[in-house]
Amino acid sequence: MAKQDKLTPRSEDFNDWYNAVVQKADLADYGPVRGTMIVKPYGWALWENIQGALDSRFKATGVQNAGFPMFIPMSFLQKEAAHVEGFAPELAVVTIGGGQELAEPIVVRPTSETMIGHAYSNWIQSYRDLPLLLNMWNSVVRWELRTKLFLRTLEFYWQEGHTAHATAEECDERTRMMLDVYTDFAVNEAAIPVIPGVKSEMERFAGANQTLTIEAMMGDGKALQSGTSHNLGENFAKAFDIQYLDKNNELQYAWTTSWGLSTRFIGAIIMTHGDDNGLIMPPRLAPYQVVIVPIYKNEEEQVSVLEATNRIQQELVAAGIRVKVDDRENLSPGFKFNDWELRGVPARIEIGPRDVEKNSVALARRDVPGREGKQFVSQEGLGQTVADLLVEIQQALLDRATKFRDDNTHDVENYDDFKTAVSTGFARVWWAGDNADETRVKEETKATIRCFPIAQPGGSGTCFYTGKPADKIAIFGRAY
Amino acid sequence: MAKQDKLTPRSEDFNDWYNAVVQKADLADYGPVRGTMIVKPYGWALWENIQGALDSRFKATGVQNAGFPMFIPMSFLQKEAAHVEGFAPELAVVTIGGGQELAEPIVVRPTSETMIGHAYSNWIQSYRDLPLLLNMWNSVVRWELRTKLFLRTLEFYWQEGHTAHATAEECDERTRMMLDVYTDFAVNEAAIPVIPGVKSEMERFAGANQTLTIEAMMGDGKALQSGTSHNLGENFAKAFDIQYLDKNNELQYAWTTSWGLSTRFIGAIIMTHGDDNGLIMPPRLAPYQVVIVPIYKNEEEQVSVLEATNRIQQELVAAGIRVKVDDRENLSPGFKFNDWELRGVPARIEIGPRDVEKNSVALARRDVPGREGKQFVSQEGLGQTVADLLVEIQQALLDRATKFRDDNTHDVENYDDFKTAVSTGFARVWWAGDNADETRVKEETKATIRCFPIAQPGGSGTCFYTGKPADKIAIFGRAY
Repeated sequence: MAKQDKLTPRSEDFNDWYNAVVQKADLADYGPVRGTMIVKPYGWALWENIQGALDSRFKATGVQNAGFPMFIPMSFLQKEAAHVEGFAPELAVVTIGGGQELAEPIVVRPTSETMIGHAYSNWIQSYRDLPLLLNMWNSVVRWELRTKLFLRTLEFYWQEGHTAHATAEECDERTRMMLDVYTDFAVNEAAIPVIPGVKSEMERFAGANQTLTIEAMMGDGKALQSGTSHNLGENFAKAFDIQYLDKNNELQYAWTTSWGLSTRFIGAIIMTHGDDNGLIMPPRLAPYQVVIVPIYKNEEEQVSVLEATNRIQQELVAAGIRVKVDDRENLSPGFKFNDWELRGVPARIEIGPRDVEKNSVALARRDVPGREGKQFVSQEGLGQTVADLLVEIQQALLDRATKFRDDNTHDVENYDDFKTAVSTGFARVWWAGDNADETRVKEETKATIRCFPIAQPGGSGTCFYTGKPADKIAIFGRAY
Repeated sequence: MAKQDKLTPRSEDFNDWYNAVVQKADLADYGPVRGTMIVKPYGWALWENIQGALDSRFKATGVQNAGFPMFIPMSFLQKEAAHVEGFAPELAVVTIGGGQELAEPIVVRPTSETMIGHAYSNWIQSYRDLPLLLNMWNSVVRWELRTKLFLRTLEFYWQEGHTAHATAEECDERTRMMLDVYTDFAVNEAAIPVIPGVKSEMERFAGANQTLTIEAMMGDGKALQSGTSHNLGENFAKAFDIQYLDKNNELQYAWTTSWGLSTRFIGAIIMTHGDDNGLIMPPRLAPYQVVIVPIYKNEEEQVSVLEATNRIQQELVAAGIRVKVDDRENLSPGFKFNDWELRGVPARIEIGPRDVEKNSVALARRDVPGREGKQFVSQEGLGQTVADLLVEIQQALLDRATKFRDDNTHDVENYDDFKTAVSTGFARVWWAGDNADETRVKEETKATIRCFPIAQPGGSGTCFYTGKPADKIAIFGRAY
């Protein structure tokens, strides 16, 4: 089998570390067309758990899933001016179908607002047809030149939700509701302490009136936009003629939203929780929550150890825990420990002949390395012991990530301190600049406004950059 | 709201009936690019239930899911001669990406054997890497000229499984195992009595040594190929150089399979079970298994009826039943009954003020129309009553479809009887013809060999067409 090279330490080269972890942990690899991604079974199992956690939350708010075509007529893209300007440079275009040159070129969807605009225009006639709340799980294509697995690939997987409403208020409420869903998911499932906030005008989605975002701090202090919810106002309704008759029988434009979270979020999990030994999966999303490594030296030991392993596996499965037994015969226990640490399985059970005798096992937690993270526990009630440990690990990951984020977020009042802050993390500042100011700050420091947090302190202060009076706080950071 | 037109009766124009049901029951509609399909929420919910039932069966056999890119280099298609010949006429080709003409055109996958061949060639080195058992849920594109919703669309949804094995025997076994999975799914989840069998050489998948199929009879007597499992032998392994070192350290080619079931299967459900009033969903796959229609005339009645409705809904949900309450205020009970019959909800509960008083409800089954299918039952133990009824309906649908299939399948010994048989159903015959004979029969009767059933009677007979001695039975039929 493969040799176990040491990973590049995170502190030495975070980018190298990331690429190595993604590939060595068997999460993903590049496809044959430049910039495309193959998501391998272990990475896909993580994505399926992300899907499950989000999908049930969407459905609880009344959203239904549907399937829309990947092919969009080029002319659709051109109907919303800001939208086409944003996406035109990134399109993949089908010009030949069934051996014939096509009369109108077809775009492989970069996102589906235009397709949805077309369909909703047909489906929505009356106020009784509203709200319309749909979501789809699919992949989209954006012709990116600089790609990185999960973070930016030519094709990526995501969900895109699209809703239509009778009033601006309901539209606002839904935009915010989906931000709250993403925040709840990030914090409580992925143990990632995101900052929910509002994007600046410059960072808005092409065609939106407002873009809400959840922003996370990665292990190198950089920001990752991890999910977005857009208030599209009447823009797409006007471009696609989505009109309905209200209760007074008057024709009105609908108000629409869209919101998405993608396989990029897997990058957030890797870069928030990982360490020099590899991944650390948050227990609630981990494909395997526990790995059992049986240890024996001869056939006699093998029989009793595997019998106990089997029994323990069944008990854990019955307790609702996702278990992997590593019974590969050609590998040493030490190799297996390293292998599953690299893959970030939150807890490991080791069981050898002496454990069988003593009715105990060794139970190691991935987030606390070495002896400190290992305890010997009774086989009695092991399902509960492990379930409790997983809850503890989940909380510990969130606490650690929150502390790291807070330790690397600085309230600054002048440009020098700002530059220091964004070189290692976030700067939290009063801001009263305009687009030109924001652009200059970006050119000078590579930092952008990640968001204006929803949780504003209130009051007012002085903009660190323009010196003008400011009434809102912004988070700046360098971003992926 | 929409008026309720009568459907065209099935007996009058099966094709019209089908198209009307698909659209009026809100299953699907055409997309803006010719031949593409929008699967609406009700249709997608059915597809999600199909996915769930299949996915758990796949995983029980050791299969894992993964995600592979939709973009395949054109050169990949050309590596397997039969494969490219089969698929070249149906390709959608991307020639422009990010505003630039591409050096090599890219194909939107029509199926992924070539992408898998590329990846497996990289991943498989040793016998320890085998078997490799992957599946993906995705959509694929085939540039069809004549399209029909679910049955044949330019883009369709499916799963495609791809496995690699060390030996021909294991490859054979897996090909057959997946046929058995499809058969079990069709019979026990969809209540469709399929015939598992082997395709003739002419009907094989492009690049396969053998194609296994499940064939179903639709309500008009025509056949629908509802799922296929291909033994690809060493063909793709040789084209893509999938080689492994065996236990003796000798280099061997791997043996591969692929198998798929698509949204076409939704067409099978519609055309197997539907009647002149619309769809009939098999209870195990139905998005809603029961609809509750509350009936009241004034506010006082409304309060008590909705209170009972709410209580019953909770009891049914607690019993694991998928329930829809139709509390739309602007529609009459009669309209609602017709609407849910059209959508094929297997059971309906009606509850009015007198039912509340008598602690009873009316319980109607979709598969038995009118008074005969309706009974008054106690609200006590209603969860169990409904659960039992759903089991009964599921079995009744299977029994009815099996009887219809058997009644319309004829053992024939001469060409005249054959022609009569395939004009209304299947002909079951001894067959010893070659490809040329099969082609002539198709030209003369539009009937093709659907399969050589796995369950052969044994013995031998005389080929109805060539008069030659024959040792196997074939099923002929006209097909979708």
